[in-house]
Amino acid sequence: MERLLRKCQIRNQLVRECLAECLGVYVLILFGCGSAAQVTTSQDKNGQYLSINLGFALGVTFGVFVSRGVSGAHLNPAVSLSLCALGRHPWMKLPFYVFFQVMGAFLAAATVGLQYYDAIQAYSGGELTVTGPTATAGIFSTYPAAYLSLWGGVVDQVIGTAALLMCVLALGDQRNSPLPDGLQPVLVGAAVLVIGVSMGSNSGYALNPARDLGPRLFTYIAGWGVDVFKAGGGWWWVPIVAPCVGALLGTLIYMLMIEVHHPSLSELHTSCQEATEEKAGVELEGVKPHCVKPSTKM
Amino acid sequence: MERLLRKCQIRNQLVRECLAECLGVYVLILFGCGSAAQVTTSQDKNGQYLSINLGFALGVTFGVFVSRGVSGAHLNPAVSLSLCALGRHPWMKLPFYVFFQVMGAFLAAATVGLQYYDAIQAYSGGELTVTGPTATAGIFSTYPAAYLSLWGGVVDQVIGTAALLMCVLALGDQRNSPLPDGLQPVLVGAAVLVIGVSMGSNSGYALNPARDLGPRLFTYIAGWGVDVFKAGGGWWWVPIVAPCVGALLGTLIYMLMIEVHHPSLSELHTSCQEATEEKAGVELEGVKPHCVKPSTKM
Amino acid sequence: MERLLRKCQIRNQLVRECLAECLGVYVLILFGCGSAAQVTTSQDKNGQYLSINLGFALGVTFGVFVSRGVSGAHLNPAVSLSLCALGRHPWMKLPFYVFFQVMGAFLAAATVGLQYYDAIQAYSGGELTVTGPTATAGIFSTYPAAYLSLWGGVVDQVIGTAALLMCVLALGDQRNSPLPDGLQPVLVGAAVLVIGVSMGSNSGYALNPARDLGPRLFTYIAGWGVDVFKAGGGWWWVPIVAPCVGALLGTLIYMLMIEVHHPSLSELHTSCQEATEEKAGVELEGVKPHCVKPSTKM
Amino acid sequence: MERLLRKCQIRNQLVRECLAECLGVYVLILFGCGSAAQVTTSQDKNGQYLSINLGFALGVTFGVFVSRGVSGAHLNPAVSLSLCALGRHPWMKLPFYVFFQVMGAFLAAATVGLQYYDAIQAYSGGELTVTGPTATAGIFSTYPAAYLSLWGGVVDQVIGTAALLMCVLALGDQRNSPLPDGLQPVLVGAAVLVIGVSMGSNSGYALNPARDLGPRLFTYIAGWGVDVFKAGGGWWWVPIVAPCVGALLGTLIYMLMIEVHHPSLSELHTSCQEATEEKAGVELEGVKPHCVKPSTKM
Repeated sequence: MERLLRKCQIRNQLVRECLAECLGVYVLILFGCGSAAQVTTSQDKNGQYLSINLGFALGVTFGVFVSRGVSGAHLNPAVSLSLCALGRHPWMKLPFYVFFQVMGAFLAAATVGLQYYDAIQAYSGGELTVTGPTATAGIFSTYPAAYLSLWGGVVDQVIGTAALLMCVLALGDQRNSPLPDGLQPVLVGAAVLVIGVSMGSNSGYALNPARDLGPRLFTYIAGWGVDVFKAGGGWWWVPIVAPCVGALLGTLIYMLMIEVHHPSLSELHTSCQEATEEKAGVELEGVKPHCVKPSTKM
Repeated sequence: MERLLRKCQIRNQLVRECLAECLGVYVLILFGCGSAAQVTTSQDKNGQYLSINLGFALGVTFGVFVSRGVSGAHLNPAVSLSLCALGRHPWMKLPFYVFFQVMGAFLAAATVGLQYYDAIQAYSGGELTVTGPTATAGIFSTYPAAYLSLWGGVVDQVIGTAALLMCVLALGDQRNSPLPDGLQPVLVGAAVLVIGVSMGSNSGYALNPARDLGPRLFTYIAGWGVDVFKAGGGWWWVPIVAPCVGALLGTLIYMLMIEVHHPSLSELHTSCQEATEEKAGVELEGVKPHCVKPSTKM
Repeated sequence: MERLLRKCQIRNQLVRECLAECLGVYVLILFGCGSAAQVTTSQDKNGQYLSINLGFALGVTFGVFVSRGVSGAHLNPAVSLSLCALGRHPWMKLPFYVFFQVMGAFLAAATVGLQYYDAIQAYSGGELTVTGPTATAGIFSTYPAAYLSLWGGVVDQVIGTAALLMCVLALGDQRNSPLPDGLQPVLVGAAVLVIGVSMGSNSGYALNPARDLGPRLFTYIAGWGVDVFKAGGGWWWVPIVAPCVGALLGTLIYMLMIEVHHPSLSELHTSCQEATEEKAGVELEGVKPHCVKPSTKM
Repeated sequence: MERLLRKCQIRNQLVRECLAECLGVYVLILFGCGSAAQVTTSQDKNGQYLSINLGFALGVTFGVFVSRGVSGAHLNPAVSLSLCALGRHPWMKLPFYVFFQVMGAFLAAATVGLQYYDAIQAYSGGELTVTGPTATAGIFSTYPAAYLSLWGGVVDQVIGTAALLMCVLALGDQRNSPLPDGLQPVLVGAAVLVIGVSMGSNSGYALNPARDLGPRLFTYIAGWGVDVFKAGGGWWWVPIVAPCVGALLGTLIYMLMIEVHHPSLSELHTSCQEATEEKAGVELEGVKPHCVKPSTKM
């Protein structure tokens, strides 16, 4: 079978990247919204808020595993935007990435809708509502808590996405605290977990325009209707715009407080040369020498 | 003692593999069904739904640790089937693997039945039932939720197993996001955790014909009787057939969207040659160069 | 200060190992019984059964980190016994190890008693009881559930400790699924977590004579009195004897089903020679070649 | 943009370290107090005590990731003090580190206050109180349980911080159980998790003068008033003084029971020379030979 499949090989780099982003976001939303569906329709019997946090966190982890080697595993238009702004990703690819991210989220929401069709029917008595005691739209996309003002929601999403980007940039900054390459997906998931645990209460930590818009479009089409855009005082645009602002802000903070101050590699080379010459054997063991380290690490 | 034991050494490769598969599934079910027994008989006092998810997840992790170096740790007929279909495992071995997987699950269910004998007697008042308020058959094998239609159950198991295979194939795909070899068992467990958290509600995420059939046979023999096959409208065949379909589907999706498009190693070689020549020292540090990587990783 | 401390250096190997075992078990019980104290005295408000599982699991992890490089981190008389039986640890050292393991557990129980003195007084109204609604002896050592027969308890502890040893031996078996050396403490903790989640209900998963006897002696002296030995029908000897039997049983099962059948290194060498000669470069990257591997790993 | 930012590069080592400590503690408190805010204002609906433990644990993990390569990631005046006492950090830098640690905590508390402004208003009915049924000061800094005596609180904090330092020193002790460098942040977080799970009940496991004082100053200014210093019988100084004592005590215990007894490297060299000469190839694979190891590791 493997030989047969190989005939379908696509060599175009951008197409491969778009497929990977699509499948990555698909996995993220399949597990994330799936766990929300499980908790909602079982009325907290088969899971609680923490298991939704776990669902999105491990959803991100496996979404990254599925796509990282091909597309870099952005999985989030706000992340793609930040990387473009930093000059680490070509602007030209941005619209393609975003489109396929949203499409992956849409398809995953449809899959969750299919898998939980019976459960949602039983829980909601067949009525697909956005608000009320048996509302089920919150399984798919985010809505603000009753107490939250619109500007409070914007602030919430800006802070949350800024925190995400600070963590993600720190994990990828080889001159700060390098971690074994294969573990980055796990720790990006852990970042999403801690944000869910500490910033999920106000408006459900979308942090990601594709994660929110794709499933919202699905609910719009699949029977929840135009309420999904009207609810929460027209909330829908906040998880699209605010994460982009937050991502840029978080990038700026991390760059200005940490990354730009790293000594450049050439400086490091000069000051390390003597040290490294005498411990060449150590270098072979995979430990990169951090010459300019000031004091004992915690 | 070690010298004494060495006399029992078996050199036949297939026998060793079958023993390993048997012990691997045994560990998986011992912890998995054990946690279900703990939650059920303690009436949620000594654990909740999440701890059953943890039991199966870490059960898989240690099942893989126990058997991986010998048999490759399939632990699941649906996984064995997919690997055969992909040409990565000989079809000839398939029936042996499947038989010993089911046997391991059967023996583990018997062990759980023994360990929780007093607890099950106390909880159920001595009556071993498949349905009703003190039903205990669900400790061992899966039954659908009351609201679930049969076809809904098939769809549920197909989607769940497809998701499992996508994760497992991504973890093993060295040209995507390679992870430190010794951590694969942990992350396969994490995949099972996230599926339990997001897809456990409908019918208990069997995902594995051996995991379901072995314990069901035990309950049939041990006093629950023929109801274990009749309950849920003859549910028993769904977690046998649907996971096989789902595993093949998940394999197909991952192959078609990601793996077949990886540049072949020879292509990589050509385009990387120059790069790798100048950083031969880096290669020694165990970092495989990903030459065709398009953009910054998340 | 470091120079000053260095004057206290002890060079005797056995004394160093005993100190390490003592501190290792101390850390294990400090966190383990501490979490039980927290859940009991806060009446499930500041934690639930799962957090006790986490307390013992991470207690083991950090107990191993604290002592592994010095004494090998047995932290459990039943583990020491099994390693002696396997010929991997000298019998002569066994009594010393066991004594210091029990002492570490005793001292840690005393520390928990001190740290939670006010809380225990407030919770129990000043009466230190072994049974009844405000019993607090269960914070320190294990007692069987009301439904459990004595032989049921023995079976429970034998199965639990056998499962522990199977996991621990698999983690340490370099010819099965080798994992990065530094992660063994984490995964030994994970084994204790999954046992707690799946086998904690009947009698509190002591699995370790030192873990149970040390704190029991503390409660005997500190005011709970002779009831700690009388309760549960004279339960106290079960978590001492049964784990030793279980550990030997688990060792036997793992050895007979997996480890003795590994091809000896010399056999491996012969059959691998050709393969390894041509990929000498790969070997340098830290990947040990598993030549006799039959099929694709999961 | 990256080029533009590079113009802001600061080359002064101490300034860079202070910025890193500030951002590290900021991340720690943002996630830690954020999770407390979420649990408090959602009245345990969107998380429970365990999720606060997770928030502080992963807060520490990402705080360390953000700052470790630059400042060594102390993130805690008590840790800085211990390292100074051990001679591993210059005393001269201590006041700078402490000031920026407190500032980071203050700024993070302000951010949490901003992000949860609407939620706190809704939960407390607009009244910012330190005690009573809708008290919200506990979101930011620690207060003792009603039953806790002042000296009980001091003992609690001393034991907790001593346990923290024992774990942290063991993780960093390359001659004990070395772990992959990049995973230290994760395991320092795990240490904080297990302390939260086992020692959080009495007085909220501050363990860190900056973590407690910074947010307390914020609440003092932001409307909770002078009660934040008066409550708990003038509790505020305990989480400042006791952690310093505890950190020194834990350091002393670990050094005296484990680290000072390690054979010095020169001794190791002599006794290992023969062994290492014949397995030079193994050394290249990154496995440091532990020659003096007495027995099989657990």
